[in-house]
Amino acid sequence: MRLDELAAKLGAVLHGDGEIEITGVAGIREARAGQVTFLANPKYESFVATTNASALIAARRPPGRSLPVLEVEEPYLAFVNALGIFSRDRLGAVPGIHDSAILGKDVVLGEGVSIGPLVVIGDGAAIGDRTVLMSGCFVGGATRIGADAHLYPNVVVREDSILGDRVVVHSGAVIGSDGFGFARDGESVRKIPQIGNVEVGDDVEIGANTTIDRATTGTTRIGRGSKIDNLVMVAHNVQIGANTLVCAQVGISGSATVGDGVTLAGQVGLVGHISVGDRVQVGAQGGVTKSIPSGESVSGYPALPHRQARRIYAAMRSLPDIVRTVRELCRRVAALEGGERRRDRSDGRRRERE
Amino acid sequence: MRLDELAAKLGAVLHGDGEIEITGVAGIREARAGQVTFLANPKYESFVATTNASALIAARRPPGRSLPVLEVEEPYLAFVNALGIFSRDRLGAVPGIHDSAILGKDVVLGEGVSIGPLVVIGDGAAIGDRTVLMSGCFVGGATRIGADAHLYPNVVVREDSILGDRVVVHSGAVIGSDGFGFARDGESVRKIPQIGNVEVGDDVEIGANTTIDRATTGTTRIGRGSKIDNLVMVAHNVQIGANTLVCAQVGISGSATVGDGVTLAGQVGLVGHISVGDRVQVGAQGGVTKSIPSGESVSGYPALPHRQARRIYAAMRSLPDIVRTVRELCRRVAALEGGERRRDRSDGRRRERE
Amino acid sequence: MRLDELAAKLGAVLHGDGEIEITGVAGIREARAGQVTFLANPKYESFVATTNASALIAARRPPGRSLPVLEVEEPYLAFVNALGIFSRDRLGAVPGIHDSAILGKDVVLGEGVSIGPLVVIGDGAAIGDRTVLMSGCFVGGATRIGADAHLYPNVVVREDSILGDRVVVHSGAVIGSDGFGFARDGESVRKIPQIGNVEVGDDVEIGANTTIDRATTGTTRIGRGSKIDNLVMVAHNVQIGANTLVCAQVGISGSATVGDGVTLAGQVGLVGHISVGDRVQVGAQGGVTKSIPSGESVSGYPALPHRQARRIYAAMRSLPDIVRTVRELCRRVAALEGGERRRDRSDGRRRERE
Repeated sequence: MRLDELAAKLGAVLHGDGEIEITGVAGIREARAGQVTFLANPKYESFVATTNASALIAARRPPGRSLPVLEVEEPYLAFVNALGIFSRDRLGAVPGIHDSAILGKDVVLGEGVSIGPLVVIGDGAAIGDRTVLMSGCFVGGATRIGADAHLYPNVVVREDSILGDRVVVHSGAVIGSDGFGFARDGESVRKIPQIGNVEVGDDVEIGANTTIDRATTGTTRIGRGSKIDNLVMVAHNVQIGANTLVCAQVGISGSATVGDGVTLAGQVGLVGHISVGDRVQVGAQGGVTKSIPSGESVSGYPALPHRQARRIYAAMRSLPDIVRTVRELCRRVAALEGGERRRDRSDGRRRERE
Repeated sequence: MRLDELAAKLGAVLHGDGEIEITGVAGIREARAGQVTFLANPKYESFVATTNASALIAARRPPGRSLPVLEVEEPYLAFVNALGIFSRDRLGAVPGIHDSAILGKDVVLGEGVSIGPLVVIGDGAAIGDRTVLMSGCFVGGATRIGADAHLYPNVVVREDSILGDRVVVHSGAVIGSDGFGFARDGESVRKIPQIGNVEVGDDVEIGANTTIDRATTGTTRIGRGSKIDNLVMVAHNVQIGANTLVCAQVGISGSATVGDGVTLAGQVGLVGHISVGDRVQVGAQGGVTKSIPSGESVSGYPALPHRQARRIYAAMRSLPDIVRTVRELCRRVAALEGGERRRDRSDGRRRERE
Repeated sequence: MRLDELAAKLGAVLHGDGEIEITGVAGIREARAGQVTFLANPKYESFVATTNASALIAARRPPGRSLPVLEVEEPYLAFVNALGIFSRDRLGAVPGIHDSAILGKDVVLGEGVSIGPLVVIGDGAAIGDRTVLMSGCFVGGATRIGADAHLYPNVVVREDSILGDRVVVHSGAVIGSDGFGFARDGESVRKIPQIGNVEVGDDVEIGANTTIDRATTGTTRIGRGSKIDNLVMVAHNVQIGANTLVCAQVGISGSATVGDGVTLAGQVGLVGHISVGDRVQVGAQGGVTKSIPSGESVSGYPALPHRQARRIYAAMRSLPDIVRTVRELCRRVAALEGGERRRDRSDGRRRERE
């Protein structure tokens, strides 16, 4: 694609030679000749001088180097768009049902579905138009998947689940496994049957090897537009709102509620039965032990408002000094108190004499 | 089922109309007309006034509302029983061997086994009576699985493993993968062959995408009745006792020993070669760096007795104040010491004059 | 094998009867008659008196018991060698392509490859000589796997990935899943296409259910000889050096760089875009929030140099006492200041009178 064509597609102002050929998109350090790169974070400005890219997406023409520039207001979003323009479909999912797929009774398939090799679909399941199930996926009985969804190889979606339109599920994810419901009964442990299901909204993406448990009764819910990274645990009866980002290895315990537009950073843990409000941000490895009101940012263990947590963790560094200083102060104050008592006694004697 | 029939099955005292039809079981907030719900936690008492359920399992008739009540001593266990009564088998596993399953040589199958589509069983493996292997499961050579076990889709159990009766394994779990045994040898890293196996006791349940590594030599063991949640890591040579609960994303390092009746909450980590006694409880995200005696409750990082950890984490909140106060105290004490020295000198002069 | 033959293979000096038959290798506590065990850690010396092993690998003949001894300089490495000698191939992978495997167009297979049941290989993939793909593995289009590699059952390697020679991947691992790249765009969340790939060096081992995401653009890299345990998350564009050990449940965020010879203990988390130098060691559950220079050992959250972290966590235990002591000091100092003011006033009066 010519650079001026790309500029037009991105709605960018072109500075420089529009006739050069652009073959791809890459980060500023790894870009090669023929590729376009971008500058959004000022931290990377020094790489403009040395990048091998043939053109740069940026908010303004950087000084110094006469690289062709695509000027846009939001360089990062323009870069994302450029990625979309250059990403070809390398998955090669073709409409149709592979000979080796095994379908149960009364399965309903939409138009243009692509059912890959060794896919197993249970009785009464329904798959929406143009949805792709790649090889080795399992779809349980009575499960319904919307249109334009994409399940990568070896995904398991158990019975009675509901997945919306354009849902993407990465390899190895398990949706609808039993919740961890057990009751201690004397020495032994009794299983609590898990008879609920999982419902995943439109435009949700679920990462590789993530697990989302079915509800004990009722429904475990992931709201529209939310994105879940790899190796995340969503326990039974959890309710996640819309457009929430859940990073890798987060664990959300049973019956917790998470609002809209929330960000949970990597390895965060939420205890059960709490409620995390809209737009809350939890810092990496944070341990949330209480409900958090909307709009709050928290971090640390146990999670506290982010500014407070930062002050606490900064103060922790001086803790060994503080312990030493306090012990020393105790001695010094005791010495002063000894002096005071001596003086009080001699003052008393002096007063007596006076 | 009529309410009076349900009361009889649960051994409950019925208060109210026993002829109403009960169609299912649900939590007090999500229950619909026709369903029975329960009240165990006093926190939920206020929902009795508004629930849409047609009947309530409770320890006594709640005041105010004339809802039919099934009175029992342990409402939660009665609810669990009711769940069992209403949970139908939605998996539809039928006895027999699916045409697409691939069995090795000398495989021994019990009576009434259900071997699903695309299951692969290695040479010399043995599967007990009525055990269900759902689609895509892999059972390695010489592995033995007991009776009435249930492996959900895409479980991997590698060679030489032993699983007891009534064991349940959820999708994506891997049993018998190599332990992480490597020795640094100069700059390079050498693999330590992992020639042991895994043994899982009767009535154990293992969560989705959990991994249990085989021993270097000897056996990694999960004791009878223990329940393991999703995404848990059990390393080589770990020994877990009976009736222990291991919540999601817990990591148990190599050769650690965990007793009977223990509860490890979510995201807990245990270092290797330690021993955790019977009935120990470890709080969420706790980092256990030392052996813990039986009966202890611990939490935090590094894990300390729970009461001590709570006091420490409470005190941490005042840490920035303490740092400031200690610095101020240093100045004030120095000022007092200055005064004392001045006074000592003037006292000395006074004593000289006196 | 006779003990004298084993001694010769291990390059050990034999003390005792070389004609006894050795049937296997085991740890000192679990070894049975006929097995050889080893003593490397002095902590286990007391078990020499009671072990059922028929011979002992050790650095010198232990006093007291007349057990046949194989004397070597490095008992642990000799034990590892002995493990290798006695580990038989229990996987039974036979060269050839199973009838049920499904191969795309233009797949290139090396000599002696073993393609197990239900393996799916995409168009244009290449598999090196003697490499084993066990049952249920998926290899995406254009992916290249080197020679003598071993993929255990149900591994997913997505399109365009590159795996070196002798790479081992355990069951359920996912290589090449999409990076977690999303940009908030007002209320909604936009997917950033992930068009890069993953490259895994020679002699790398990857644990069960671990996930390694493809790069946004460019390549996510695991260097030669590195070993990754189970349930680890390696995010997009991460660069890991050579001979690095990554323990279970570690999370490495996007674009982080990890050097050579590094050890990341269990459940460690690294934030994105940081750089961890060569030979760095991070303690279990450590939260690395900043770049770490080569050779440093760090631990805790946020991770600090290990000695400093140890002092801080030790000091934390006295924190509740410190809080109480500081409050008490405040009162005592205020009392002293009150006395000082009184005395200053009376001194003033005295000086006036004098």
